[in-house]
Amino acid sequence: MLRALDLAEALEAGDVTPRGVVELIVEAVAEREAELGAFAHLDLDLLRAAASRGEFSGPLHGLPVAFKDIIDTASLPTEYGSPIYKGWKPKADAAIVTMTEAAGGLMLGKAATCEFAFLNPAPTLNPFDAARTPGGSSAGSAAGVAAGMMPLAFGTQTGGSVIRPASYCGVAAIKPSFRLLPTVGVKTGAWTLDTLGLFGARVVDVAFGLAAISGRDLRVDGRDFGAPVLGVTRLPFAGAMAPEAEAALDVAIRAAERAGASVVDVTLPPEWAAAQAAHATIYSFEGAHALSWEIAHHKDKLSGILRQHFAPEVPISVEAYDEARGIAKRARRASHGVFSGIDALLTYSATGVAPDRSSTGDAACNKLFTLLGTPAVNVPGLHFAEGLPMGLQVISAFGEDHRALAAAHYVENLLMSTQ
Amino acid sequence: MLRALDLAEALEAGDVTPRGVVELIVEAVAEREAELGAFAHLDLDLLRAAASRGEFSGPLHGLPVAFKDIIDTASLPTEYGSPIYKGWKPKADAAIVTMTEAAGGLMLGKAATCEFAFLNPAPTLNPFDAARTPGGSSAGSAAGVAAGMMPLAFGTQTGGSVIRPASYCGVAAIKPSFRLLPTVGVKTGAWTLDTLGLFGARVVDVAFGLAAISGRDLRVDGRDFGAPVLGVTRLPFAGAMAPEAEAALDVAIRAAERAGASVVDVTLPPEWAAAQAAHATIYSFEGAHALSWEIAHHKDKLSGILRQHFAPEVPISVEAYDEARGIAKRARRASHGVFSGIDALLTYSATGVAPDRSSTGDAACNKLFTLLGTPAVNVPGLHFAEGLPMGLQVISAFGEDHRALAAAHYVENLLMSTQ
Repeated sequence: MLRALDLAEALEAGDVTPRGVVELIVEAVAEREAELGAFAHLDLDLLRAAASRGEFSGPLHGLPVAFKDIIDTASLPTEYGSPIYKGWKPKADAAIVTMTEAAGGLMLGKAATCEFAFLNPAPTLNPFDAARTPGGSSAGSAAGVAAGMMPLAFGTQTGGSVIRPASYCGVAAIKPSFRLLPTVGVKTGAWTLDTLGLFGARVVDVAFGLAAISGRDLRVDGRDFGAPVLGVTRLPFAGAMAPEAEAALDVAIRAAERAGASVVDVTLPPEWAAAQAAHATIYSFEGAHALSWEIAHHKDKLSGILRQHFAPEVPISVEAYDEARGIAKRARRASHGVFSGIDALLTYSATGVAPDRSSTGDAACNKLFTLLGTPAVNVPGLHFAEGLPMGLQVISAFGEDHRALAAAHYVENLLMSTQ
Repeated sequence: MLRALDLAEALEAGDVTPRGVVELIVEAVAEREAELGAFAHLDLDLLRAAASRGEFSGPLHGLPVAFKDIIDTASLPTEYGSPIYKGWKPKADAAIVTMTEAAGGLMLGKAATCEFAFLNPAPTLNPFDAARTPGGSSAGSAAGVAAGMMPLAFGTQTGGSVIRPASYCGVAAIKPSFRLLPTVGVKTGAWTLDTLGLFGARVVDVAFGLAAISGRDLRVDGRDFGAPVLGVTRLPFAGAMAPEAEAALDVAIRAAERAGASVVDVTLPPEWAAAQAAHATIYSFEGAHALSWEIAHHKDKLSGILRQHFAPEVPISVEAYDEARGIAKRARRASHGVFSGIDALLTYSATGVAPDRSSTGDAACNKLFTLLGTPAVNVPGLHFAEGLPMGLQVISAFGEDHRALAAAHYVENLLMSTQ
């Protein structure tokens, strides 16, 4: 994998040029892309020209960054994973693209996405096993980082579309606090839920990238934050977990305890279980509105699974939606109790390793935290049957993104030394 | 003015056809538009063809509705009031356009807007006095309804861009609870603040339109809700008011008391004054991100006032932004106390009648309520010096849009009978 932090330091030192980094990417693309399909749009000539042109100021120093194809770009098509937008060229870049460029980043290309970031599988394969899904909906972002083709890649999470594919592909990722990153110019799925997230090789890489682009003090490299207090939960409302998920959590707990971290059991409030169920109501209601033009004018070009959720025969009523919003509000309020006394929750990133390609996997471990707006980090490092990765999820209170990253960095270091 | 509710009832009864309503609009346009400049884009042939085509199902029965030109439309250009987007044709309609059409509405045309819904005056004139501003930034929506060219018109409010122009132009308008209407496909100014609002001749008209389009039980015509409990505030944090503003509020208070409504004085919490000041910080920070592509690539095509606010030499820090968000959160929490025991607050819609065209007027009476997300209604009906309109603002608790509309309807009826 390409390590964003190391590369940025080498770029800053002049040990490598942006053009040199692009050639590393070109090599990896030549080797893996035809098989994996991680990119929706990639123009190597454009990329080489952009890398050669510049003077890059800002902490990224010319580091290339990929963007999920529901994020608008003016220089490359943006198709939202849908034939309705075949060849569509937006007028403007999304805010996150401009912010990345202002931080010295270089727009690498567009990462493959599920149709409108929902459940219809993207054409991307899992780099660890071509018969399995890389997860969704940020399929190309996760697979592209895992295959060494993207040093950093933006994705989005409305259900579990950042943390789940990161777990399946063995890469780090953060879904920051709600609206820490602006979604202006990102195709809306559900305005209460849509959250931009960032993928990289390791926790230090995503922390570095998020710090550089958001202008916030979020880096966790080169500093010792001490052992965190970790609250363990097995997400009782999320259904059954596969043995690999349980094993991964057990490994992490034992390693943390051995290393002297304080590991405590946490009882989750009943408001959280209710909110887990309310997520679907909010997504279905808002999605039906967000995609109302596509449904009204291009229904025949939508997948069956999308039509079924967002254009059902009996739509979600405003009463049901308002009730779900009330449940979400109460669950957010109940979060204060959960996070008092701990630095972060430690739990599963996904219900198991990547399943086959008939689905994009199960978001049961993620959607509550999307609705709560709390920062969540996928910690990579563990591999199970046939080398398949299985991540762990570290979650802190709203606005405590640095705390989540520091705890995740701690756990990641422990896992790296166990394998 | 064209009365939306009456027209919809006539359309339903078959007493008039959509094409007939279009001809009423065409007449008013012929009479007033060349002088006023309320439209950014209007294609009468397209409009006539659309009106003739249809079978309109849904409660609007073919009623034409105009949209502020920061709301995307696929069939007419969308220029956001900026030369950067000259002739721009979005791929898709905004969600609110599709929702309006699903309710039986007909897309009338695009209403003139200030550049990116900010402070640089739109070319529109005030229908009551060509030397004065119609207010901003929903200038065309307010003037178009006032001049009888639009039965209903959507605008947006990020500071005071719905309630203030409604007051200056003597029309009714509602800024509903935050996110009651989806802003998908609406150009972002500030994601914490941007709120779609609806203009019409009277309170019953905007209530009818909002009910039809949102699918919520919000109509206030033909029902007697009894006399509301009104809490009066003179917005001590909003600075000095012109005599017309004070006189309007006094007239309303006296009329309500005479009619048997309970009118009580309300003391506002200190959190609200702090939030009034925090509004600018949030708008400036989010606006700088929302417009980052335009600033990075087309700075020379932005107005001076926009550059000054969103591309300042010293940008708003993330710390200042986070502090402002915290202040807003505490102010929202403090709202519960204000609204307990009253149906609605009664206060000024604007600091006075419409000023001259060197500005779009002062949003001091509005921006707090945008930040709080509470529903606010402009009640028209009063006219002062030289016939200039001066509105009153009625505000209820978050989610209590029907209560705000019912109280506003009550106040409007009182004002109509005083003049």
